[in-house]
Amino acid sequence: MPHLYDFSATDGSDRDLLGGKGAGLARMTSLGLPVPPGFTITTDMCRAAMATGAIPDDLWPEVEDAVARLEKTSGRHLGSGPAPLLLSVRSGAKFSMPGMMDTVLNLGINDDVVKALIEWSGDPHFGWDAYRRFVQMYGDVVLGVPEHRFQDVLTELRRSRGVEDDSELSAEDLETATTRFRDIVEQERPGELPEDPMEQVKGAITAVFLSWNTKRAVEYRRIHSIPDDLGTAANIQMMVFGDLGDDSGTGVCFTRDPGTGEKVIYGDYLPRAQGEDVVAGIRNTLTLDQLADLHPECHRRLLQIMEGLETHYRDMCDIEFTIERDVLYILQTRAGKRTAAAAVKMAVAMVGEGLIDRETAVTRVEPDSLEQLHRPRIADRVKGSASLAVGVAASPGAATGKVVFSSEEAVDQARNGAEVILVRPETTPDDIHGMAAAVGILTSQGGKTSHAAVVARGMGKPAITGAAQLQVDYEAGIASTGSVDIRRGDVITIDGTSGVVYQGEMELVPPEVPSELGDLLEWADQIRILGVRANADTAEDATLARGHGAEGIGLARTEHMFLGERLAIVQRVILSTNPTDREEALGDLERQQIGDFESLLEAMDGLPVVIRLLDPPLHEFLPSRLELEHEMLRRVRAGRPIDDLQAMSDQVARWEEDNPMLGLRGVRLGLMLKDLYRMQARAATTALTRRIQAGGTPHLEIMIPLVAAAEELIRMREMIETEITAATAETGVELAIPIGTMIELPRAALTAGEIAGVADFFSFGTNDLTQMTYGLSRDDAEGLFLRDYLEQGIFTSDPFQTLDRPGVGRLVRVATREGREANENLVVGLCGEHGGDPDSIYFVHSLGLDYVSCSPPRVEGARLAAAQAALQSDRNDV
Amino acid sequence: MPHLYDFSATDGSDRDLLGGKGAGLARMTSLGLPVPPGFTITTDMCRAAMATGAIPDDLWPEVEDAVARLEKTSGRHLGSGPAPLLLSVRSGAKFSMPGMMDTVLNLGINDDVVKALIEWSGDPHFGWDAYRRFVQMYGDVVLGVPEHRFQDVLTELRRSRGVEDDSELSAEDLETATTRFRDIVEQERPGELPEDPMEQVKGAITAVFLSWNTKRAVEYRRIHSIPDDLGTAANIQMMVFGDLGDDSGTGVCFTRDPGTGEKVIYGDYLPRAQGEDVVAGIRNTLTLDQLADLHPECHRRLLQIMEGLETHYRDMCDIEFTIERDVLYILQTRAGKRTAAAAVKMAVAMVGEGLIDRETAVTRVEPDSLEQLHRPRIADRVKGSASLAVGVAASPGAATGKVVFSSEEAVDQARNGAEVILVRPETTPDDIHGMAAAVGILTSQGGKTSHAAVVARGMGKPAITGAAQLQVDYEAGIASTGSVDIRRGDVITIDGTSGVVYQGEMELVPPEVPSELGDLLEWADQIRILGVRANADTAEDATLARGHGAEGIGLARTEHMFLGERLAIVQRVILSTNPTDREEALGDLERQQIGDFESLLEAMDGLPVVIRLLDPPLHEFLPSRLELEHEMLRRVRAGRPIDDLQAMSDQVARWEEDNPMLGLRGVRLGLMLKDLYRMQARAATTALTRRIQAGGTPHLEIMIPLVAAAEELIRMREMIETEITAATAETGVELAIPIGTMIELPRAALTAGEIAGVADFFSFGTNDLTQMTYGLSRDDAEGLFLRDYLEQGIFTSDPFQTLDRPGVGRLVRVATREGREANENLVVGLCGEHGGDPDSIYFVHSLGLDYVSCSPPRVEGARLAAAQAALQSDRNDV
Repeated sequence: MPHLYDFSATDGSDRDLLGGKGAGLARMTSLGLPVPPGFTITTDMCRAAMATGAIPDDLWPEVEDAVARLEKTSGRHLGSGPAPLLLSVRSGAKFSMPGMMDTVLNLGINDDVVKALIEWSGDPHFGWDAYRRFVQMYGDVVLGVPEHRFQDVLTELRRSRGVEDDSELSAEDLETATTRFRDIVEQERPGELPEDPMEQVKGAITAVFLSWNTKRAVEYRRIHSIPDDLGTAANIQMMVFGDLGDDSGTGVCFTRDPGTGEKVIYGDYLPRAQGEDVVAGIRNTLTLDQLADLHPECHRRLLQIMEGLETHYRDMCDIEFTIERDVLYILQTRAGKRTAAAAVKMAVAMVGEGLIDRETAVTRVEPDSLEQLHRPRIADRVKGSASLAVGVAASPGAATGKVVFSSEEAVDQARNGAEVILVRPETTPDDIHGMAAAVGILTSQGGKTSHAAVVARGMGKPAITGAAQLQVDYEAGIASTGSVDIRRGDVITIDGTSGVVYQGEMELVPPEVPSELGDLLEWADQIRILGVRANADTAEDATLARGHGAEGIGLARTEHMFLGERLAIVQRVILSTNPTDREEALGDLERQQIGDFESLLEAMDGLPVVIRLLDPPLHEFLPSRLELEHEMLRRVRAGRPIDDLQAMSDQVARWEEDNPMLGLRGVRLGLMLKDLYRMQARAATTALTRRIQAGGTPHLEIMIPLVAAAEELIRMREMIETEITAATAETGVELAIPIGTMIELPRAALTAGEIAGVADFFSFGTNDLTQMTYGLSRDDAEGLFLRDYLEQGIFTSDPFQTLDRPGVGRLVRVATREGREANENLVVGLCGEHGGDPDSIYFVHSLGLDYVSCSPPRVEGARLAAAQAALQSDRNDV
Repeated sequence: MPHLYDFSATDGSDRDLLGGKGAGLARMTSLGLPVPPGFTITTDMCRAAMATGAIPDDLWPEVEDAVARLEKTSGRHLGSGPAPLLLSVRSGAKFSMPGMMDTVLNLGINDDVVKALIEWSGDPHFGWDAYRRFVQMYGDVVLGVPEHRFQDVLTELRRSRGVEDDSELSAEDLETATTRFRDIVEQERPGELPEDPMEQVKGAITAVFLSWNTKRAVEYRRIHSIPDDLGTAANIQMMVFGDLGDDSGTGVCFTRDPGTGEKVIYGDYLPRAQGEDVVAGIRNTLTLDQLADLHPECHRRLLQIMEGLETHYRDMCDIEFTIERDVLYILQTRAGKRTAAAAVKMAVAMVGEGLIDRETAVTRVEPDSLEQLHRPRIADRVKGSASLAVGVAASPGAATGKVVFSSEEAVDQARNGAEVILVRPETTPDDIHGMAAAVGILTSQGGKTSHAAVVARGMGKPAITGAAQLQVDYEAGIASTGSVDIRRGDVITIDGTSGVVYQGEMELVPPEVPSELGDLLEWADQIRILGVRANADTAEDATLARGHGAEGIGLARTEHMFLGERLAIVQRVILSTNPTDREEALGDLERQQIGDFESLLEAMDGLPVVIRLLDPPLHEFLPSRLELEHEMLRRVRAGRPIDDLQAMSDQVARWEEDNPMLGLRGVRLGLMLKDLYRMQARAATTALTRRIQAGGTPHLEIMIPLVAAAEELIRMREMIETEITAATAETGVELAIPIGTMIELPRAALTAGEIAGVADFFSFGTNDLTQMTYGLSRDDAEGLFLRDYLEQGIFTSDPFQTLDRPGVGRLVRVATREGREANENLVVGLCGEHGGDPDSIYFVHSLGLDYVSCSPPRVEGARLAAAQAALQSDRNDV
């Protein structure tokens, strides 16, 4: 087996051996495109080097032969004139890997060659610029000399010449720079900058291969689950020069508009420049139309190539090209990045054009990106404005409004018609109503899975969390960045898609949902097997979810119905020692719950609605003792009595828990305060009966939370069935109510076989299941260590965003299999945050689950992800 | 197959068919013992009745035939004179089942028969007493008439006659009682008390069988894992009468002394009495020697029978007998209950006598009972004294001392030589030093697995928890039962074996460890496969554990070394923002840790010592904000400044967690505050080096807590190995330190294969593993619902006492198997509370674990349990 292949020697179909970049170069060469000649050293060589710790000696003769062929093809010569050959060396693994050494340009230059180069080009500026670029890049990338040392030299030169840009330096300046650069390299790595051109090439190749095992690269592979034995290839290619006078230049173009998806070509061209200058955005670029004026023939050829590549790759292509003295070269092509709207538009258009089929179209759009389509965004032309702070992009879309620091104020102001942004250190379930009243949420703590983020996403509202520069003092009504204070009533704008907070009002662009989205999602629905329901607690959410294509409600959290104004009633139920008072409070709640359930069933008429009985960590329903003590302190200082607070504090103390997440919650509360769950069961049967009597076709299911042992479910089932029988006896209306359970404790998953015997359905509550399996509370971990863990790579992903397959996922698999073995009619769903996460959807599809349930704004993405799952992964129909 | 067998028809070897009691009666009959004749209806009949819901009709002809045979054998007649036959009907399942109907006596009596009985006996008192007993028992047991209604009648009769005891009532009184009893039964269950003697017998038999499925019985079986299809047998036997004049009586005897285990016979005899009167303890009983004077021939025969039965059953027998008119009858025999000391003494003695082999001896002692042997107890003669309160028997043994309400006071008083009992609502880790200073612990909250209970057992100190009658007001220094106030300094006595609290000082008997214990445990050691280590944090505990036979330390909790006086230093490390101050505090801790480790290694020289790096829920090391606020309130009221407290509160707030159990603990803290664990690793290497230099043979192992992902362990291992290398480089002493991890999170168990690749050993931390698997915090659950759950039978056992096999146990099994598959040299132990629980030991033996580690006082019991496990269960050598 040869160690390397010329670009012209293969058709580029073997990406494993040639890497992604090498395969693309070979493919374009085989298509007859004007690719500068070169060759690819295979990934085999990298693997051999890793095994022995050194590059095998027998590689070098092959490299020398290949360079000789290159010289022949190009008519240029490595290390000498009249036309000196300069080379680039680039790594290229099968998958793009930012952790590795990337590119060294202008190899093959030294004090002699630079003279030949100047002679050949007739341009000393060009020659010395190439030389200083080589020393700088080799020094930085291959030898690890700190980049700032080179920059310091350039800065000083620019300052002394009074110019802004390196390109304005004279040839003499660049010669000076070259000399100084060489001194720096000699200082830092004595004797390591080769003079001999071939040694330069070999040094760069060696460095590319060794970079495969740098700590950063290993880390990156671990994080992205890329096998270590894949290896990288190395691509050695003739340099062409876009900076070789006014008839040269370099550019990037797209075969369609990456911003809108329209079928119009789009590109930037920069005369007299090397590739990196285009990206740096130092000078204004020209359009492709302007290019046509400068180089009509190159422009015609480029358009032809663009069309050919799109047809060949059947996707929008992003193409890098260089024009050297009026000759066009293509340096690279790949599928181009695009906005969500563009992706949708293109995918559907390409089906219409017969370029791709519907299955392919469905895989062309990132499920996560669909959420953005429904949100306003900041107008492009104001995007550059100065930001106040940057936090976590927690929920996409932009919002402008007056700052409020409490949920009460948010509700009050919203009632008066104001648009407000709720600013808090963090949010708690007490803030739900304030969040609902606000147009956007900003917190100084928490990450992507904090309460604020999760709830905001659920509500479809823009949110930024963890904007740590902001010190929020909500008592004083000030959020301060240190230099700027934002006060109650000040207007700010938040961009939840980027995480940036702006001062003042910004122009917003309303959401534009591409008309093609409906087609794409319809195709997805035809492909997918996994059902998609929504988590919704109100008729409003249910209606929204239904609009997004939800096939029912997979999780209605009744505890959310108990917050806000009803909280006081719930507290009476829990704390009251007077039975009549308690009874009355329960009656109140029951009347309200009936209404809640009726409206949910009406909004989802004909589709299943899973009502989860109360599952609060108890402390969320009770006043905080710390705050009570706080308030007492305040009152004592003001000379006011505190007896009522003291009494309340004593009552609450009886229910106090050190670890409420592990305490009296869910079914435990249901078994200790039996009349609470009984009230809810009764409200459910009454609501169902009324909807049937009203001529609807409601499908109500009751779900029991936090079951650890089958016996808990048995007792609850008995109680609920008693209520159903009683209801039918009273009204004569037959009720069919499936009764199931959350699987959210490891023990429930481990004893799923037993539990399935008494359950009609399972729904994995993967938020809690993740908390218990890892033994970590999401809210606590966020602030104290989870972010550090992710940054340090101790955890490769946030298990609250993407389902942890080896741990939590294993429990899901075991429980699904054993549950179905015990009860073949068992319906199995998942209703945690993960229900909207594409990677998690792929996984649960492969496990054979029946449905996922996610927040309404994520329903469309989930439909798409479910279709992608069906296309890409095996389903284990257990 | 016949439905019943006469006692004389089988040898009683089929306990499945005859039940325990029936088998014993048949066996004694076959041995030629004077057992009153009778027959046993098989368990088949019960199963048939359960299947159809009624007793099969074909049983009754067989019963009538069997009664006819009985009449023939006994020469008495059911339902008529001259010698009327009365019968007893008793249930008897394979295992004793308190949930079921037990016994109905004196069946076969009515208005006619009572006259014949009086004629036959010549004793109206006897006749009417038998009749009223029958109505009372049939009414209560078979028909469910409330017992108190009968008692009310007797009470009134005794009062009107001015007598204390029913036996002092006249025959006329008993006739009146019978009439009134019959009226009561007629009122409550009209027409259901049969007149016909055979109907009475059939009614009792039917009731016995139906009682198999009462709710209580079903519950009992579920809790004790007894299969529902076992069924009970029913035993019908001729009544003999111990109350038939002065030459009759009834008694109980033991073949050895059940209190001491000595080989001396022991018994109680009560003339003119029925069996229940002996147990009721109304009159003083006679000794067996006194029996010899009254009935020399019966006495001689009884002794002969006792010897025969012990030889036959090869165990100490508990025998019930009745003498009817100078004729001896044996009514029942079974293995007798005994004290722990007696059990040990007898088991070893019987081996000496050649009665049993060593394996059998090892199974004759309850592992849990050994702990009592080392504790003082309350002298027998004062045991009857009035108790102040009753709580949970949390840690055995008795203690007398002065009451203190705070740990500080306990330490102070103990320094002054006082023996104190620490009385608290509950204890926290802050109380460890107070508990160590006290002679006993009493709490008003918590159960057997509360902090107080677990720590007291670990320390080998008597403790009572959950004495809910006590209202503890520790600020006022009063514990009140409502009627009695105990004040600071008052003397009380607690009996941790029974859970009873007494006022004042009680006479205590020092522990008497039977000299036979050593032999028994040595035999156990020869039999067992499972290793037994101890959890010990101090040299004192280590020495105690070694004395009890521990084979090393399986868990040294370094966080316990950080409490008490060092707490302030730890707080400086965590809270200090001044690096120098922090550095200094760390240095202090390191010096102290070296000493801690050295002394542990010295105490366990030659045996492994597993040091677990710091694993505190963070809040245990920081002041409570609620208490700080409390204190601020107090100060403000007293007009004192609070700035220092406010500052402290602000600092603590940064580390505040809603769920500390799921927060920044264990390895997470180690990875966030890296110098803490590094300090500990350094202290460990230093201590090990010094012990080696001192000529010892120390075996130190380092254990990382709360690992959820292999990567956490990889990083810690790297850090520790760096410290080891540095230490060896400095001192030249080679150190071999195995590095392992706790498996205490479900995720660690589920990914054990991966973790085992970087671990030398696993140790299951089943306390935390149980908390996470169930999603419940032990401390919170105890008070709020766990006890209710156990009472209501929702959980069949406390998962913190006995390892939950289907859930937590499954994780232990999976992790052991997959860990060993990945690393064949992996050592696997268990160091939770369960390490001392016999049932859990049987289980982990069967899983093939290498060792358990338990608190020092439970080491002997664990050795015994491990031996029993080896004798009774298969070991899965994975």
